Amino acid sequence: MNVRETAGGVTAPAGFRASGVAAGIKASGALDIALIAADSTAAGAALFTTNRVQAAPVTVSREHLTRSGGRVRAVLVNSGCANACTGPEGLAVAQASAKAVAERLDCPIDHVLVASTGVIGVALEADKVRAGIDRAASALKSDAGYAAAQAILTTDRGPKEYAVAVDTPNGTFHVGGMAKGAGMIEPMMATMLAFVTTDASVDPALLREALVASADDTLNAITVDGECSTNDMLVALASGASQVAIHRGAGLHALIAGMRAVCHSLALEIVRGGEGATKLVAVHVSGAHDRASAKQAARTIANSLLVKTAIHGGDPNWGRLVAAAGRSGVPFDLSGAVVRVGAVVLFRDGHPFDEAAPDAAQVLAGRNIEIHVDLGTRGSHEATVWTCDLSAEYVRINGEYRT
Amino acid sequence: MNVRETAGGVTAPAGFRASGVAAGIKASGALDIALIAADSTAAGAALFTTNRVQAAPVTVSREHLTRSGGRVRAVLVNSGCANACTGPEGLAVAQASAKAVAERLDCPIDHVLVASTGVIGVALEADKVRAGIDRAASALKSDAGYAAAQAILTTDRGPKEYAVAVDTPNGTFHVGGMAKGAGMIEPMMATMLAFVTTDASVDPALLREALVASADDTLNAITVDGECSTNDMLVALASGASQVAIHRGAGLHALIAGMRAVCHSLALEIVRGGEGATKLVAVHVSGAHDRASAKQAARTIANSLLVKTAIHGGDPNWGRLVAAAGRSGVPFDLSGAVVRVGAVVLFRDGHPFDEAAPDAAQVLAGRNIEIHVDLGTRGSHEATVWTCDLSAEYVRINGEYRT
Repeated sequence: MNVRETAGGVTAPAGFRASGVAAGIKASGALDIALIAADSTAAGAALFTTNRVQAAPVTVSREHLTRSGGRVRAVLVNSGCANACTGPEGLAVAQASAKAVAERLDCPIDHVLVASTGVIGVALEADKVRAGIDRAASALKSDAGYAAAQAILTTDRGPKEYAVAVDTPNGTFHVGGMAKGAGMIEPMMATMLAFVTTDASVDPALLREALVASADDTLNAITVDGECSTNDMLVALASGASQVAIHRGAGLHALIAGMRAVCHSLALEIVRGGEGATKLVAVHVSGAHDRASAKQAARTIANSLLVKTAIHGGDPNWGRLVAAAGRSGVPFDLSGAVVRVGAVVLFRDGHPFDEAAPDAAQVLAGRNIEIHVDLGTRGSHEATVWTCDLSAEYVRINGEYRT
Repeated sequence: MNVRETAGGVTAPAGFRASGVAAGIKASGALDIALIAADSTAAGAALFTTNRVQAAPVTVSREHLTRSGGRVRAVLVNSGCANACTGPEGLAVAQASAKAVAERLDCPIDHVLVASTGVIGVALEADKVRAGIDRAASALKSDAGYAAAQAILTTDRGPKEYAVAVDTPNGTFHVGGMAKGAGMIEPMMATMLAFVTTDASVDPALLREALVASADDTLNAITVDGECSTNDMLVALASGASQVAIHRGAGLHALIAGMRAVCHSLALEIVRGGEGATKLVAVHVSGAHDRASAKQAARTIANSLLVKTAIHGGDPNWGRLVAAAGRSGVPFDLSGAVVRVGAVVLFRDGHPFDEAAPDAAQVLAGRNIEIHVDLGTRGSHEATVWTCDLSAEYVRINGEYRT
């Protein structure tokens, strides 16, 4: 089995077409409706936000996926309006949108999923969406993944897409994906919009298993600002067009490898493109007694404002790393703890190595930073969470988002 | 019973002297050693940080308080160095400092508490502290509370002190206090340095009870940046000099009222003076099924970067309030939820009132802001957490703290 990068995004796998059009939902006139359509019925699986407030498209997509038993023909995405906290009217717009797509593609309504991203609490205008669907359906093309990747963005700096080819003894299949991120990012299930396609042939249950396995240490291991949104959704579609059938065992392993590679790349792109971010930071925690503890400590460090601002300022302030680990709620033993920035040890065996600070500052001056914290509790579990630095630009963006 | 504001801080109650001197721990030459001394042995109680990493002075003070059975003669505080993560050497310096104070005041060493605040992981220089103690002991005065309040500051904008007189049928007693705050502020026990004195006569166990009751909805209900430090300590000392004896019942009620008034004022001063803060924000949550849920939801909202930046920008973005409540982990029902900014209703019965946005923006333009979120779950419990806005200035301060 071999996983290799290839060009494109959601239309890299065979059996999918996509489009991105401007429907006037964004005042700027930028692309704001994306459509992904399988050539025929695909297997589908999805992870939804864990926020107790769930946007109308989340409610509708969850219901459709359950009713269809994991059969999906198309996913409609709009940006510029989250259609969240919009009451029964918002729900009706989400349902009508799915219906319009189903009519255009001649499929059951519950074979259509819908997703939205943008400002919470603003009504999504049904007429605009309806007109956008007509144009998006007409524009569907097997090489238009990039237009779709552009149409799902809000404050993102640019499109995020990735694709791989997976060579197996039974043939080659492809996995492609696109995502939007920027702010309100901390996955407690799937905190962003991300769409992954594959031309492998797999049933919905196994696809869901692969999706959960692929998301755990990728899209579910990132944070920009510790916020979990009302609209997050990670959707996987499998067309089967490669004729490579996936069963439990080596086949599933290969599918997970391909999907994880795509999710990993999209996850890191989301962090790298975080609002105001200038650095990508991998926080590795080791020495934990179970993986959940390792992830919790890594997440606490990754969300610490003092850690994020110190990294922004290039300050190798290991005291803040230790303080964050200490308040994370998991066992932590300072006398056995180790703190490293890149390869530079700043703290070990209860003692700081302040003479190493200049070397560590050099590491922090880069754009890709690795931080290691061993909890000192002699456990064998570890976890990585990716985060970004916190800059004044984040404050500016989010103090002015609507005004 | 009547609680009225009076002048001063820790030396407002009879039976206490204090001082603040410059010992050269801060490179700037600013005051950095504070000493509070009771004229004779006082009752003492303290709450310490819940961080698993605890600074040397926390370890020493906890031990002394246990050994002495809650008897305290003096509290030594230094700023400019946290004496945290400094190994056995740091512990030795903290112990030697307590011993030096005990010698000067002619009391048992375990009647002395020590506290530190400043950068983590830097050695506290024993010689400087020793010389500072000599000068601080000579400078002790019954009206020098303000100098002590100055000497415990780090990045704080200014001293925080408050005092009240409590009139009871058995006579009048006083409660005074001082605190330092600024950053690394989210109490999970007592996340800051705060010192409260009283001339009431009360035994250590009852004083501790009053301290816990006073801190719960004051110093333990604030946040600046969600960070819990390694050095936090809230200490109460009772001299008995007023001759007003406190017993269970009305007396304890009066003591709690006085101590809560002081803790409340200090808590709000800490938030108001938070790093980069321009606004004081009270987050009220109601409708919860228990107080812990109410506090958890309020704390999640109060720590939300998107909420804090929206408030900084004057944006009445109720969607962010709803999203934060929704991810807080407590039951939340959007269809019954209510969101108010000041008296302006922005969301109720599942519907936004966007026409009220200009009025809400007017409220947000002020420096003291009240936000109300009802969880919509028809519970009868509520809680308030105080926070501040997040500004670019916070990022600047913490990106440049050591450099």
